[in-house]
Amino acid sequence: MLHKQANDVPAEMVPVGRGATKQVLIGADEAPNFAMRKFSIQPGGGMPPHTNTVEHEQYVLRGRARLGIGDKTLVAQAGDVIFIPAQTPHWYEVEGAEPFEFLCLIPNMPDRMELVKAR
Amino acid sequence: MLHKQANDVPAEMVPVGRGATKQVLIGADEAPNFAMRKFSIQPGGGMPPHTNTVEHEQYVLRGRARLGIGDKTLVAQAGDVIFIPAQTPHWYEVEGAEPFEFLCLIPNMPDRMELVKAR
Repeated sequence: MLHKQANDVPAEMVPVGRGATKQVLIGADEAPNFAMRKFSIQPGGGMPPHTNTVEHEQYVLRGRARLGIGDKTLVAQAGDVIFIPAQTPHWYEVEGAEPFEFLCLIPNMPDRMELVKAR
Repeated sequence: MLHKQANDVPAEMVPVGRGATKQVLIGADEAPNFAMRKFSIQPGGGMPPHTNTVEHEQYVLRGRARLGIGDKTLVAQAGDVIFIPAQTPHWYEVEGAEPFEFLCLIPNMPDRMELVKAR
């Protein structure tokens, strides 16, 4: 059993992001099948186009951002649900004055992130 | 790729709950490893003690509830993160005047829910 407040979990900078931090809410060492992380990206910030070897299941908690997923571009906001298949290039650009906050869950499998040039 | 608004996803009553509905945000047929569901329990509502054959990873979006997990009782509120291991009895009682809303993710494995008498 585990019970914590997301705000109490330490945040680490996401090196390739601009103004992006990650908190591991439920880690691969705390649950058998998948991990829950929370990302926060500040106004004006973003994440460059990249791929991961694992899929993402995301739920937007706050704010608004433009997202590219494969060859699609969309605007995501609080209450939006997003699935990004493994190996699909994706990027984020925060819109508006609020931080963009979202949960991002991944399976407990080795993940390699790779930057891609396509945009 | 998948992008939807949680509010647009149909809600179904949870038969054993009181004032409880479930929305399947990302189903086992939409993602390879785990499913994302959103539960909403109305003020005065709850869920009786039960077990599941799969673990739960939960994130509280709104409201406040008393939860029993195994032999522990706790109060959960917005921003709280909860892990309930497989087969551990758990129950919910909403507190206050707001609905209690939370995400609950489970692996794509057969799940059997069983009511338990222990409280």
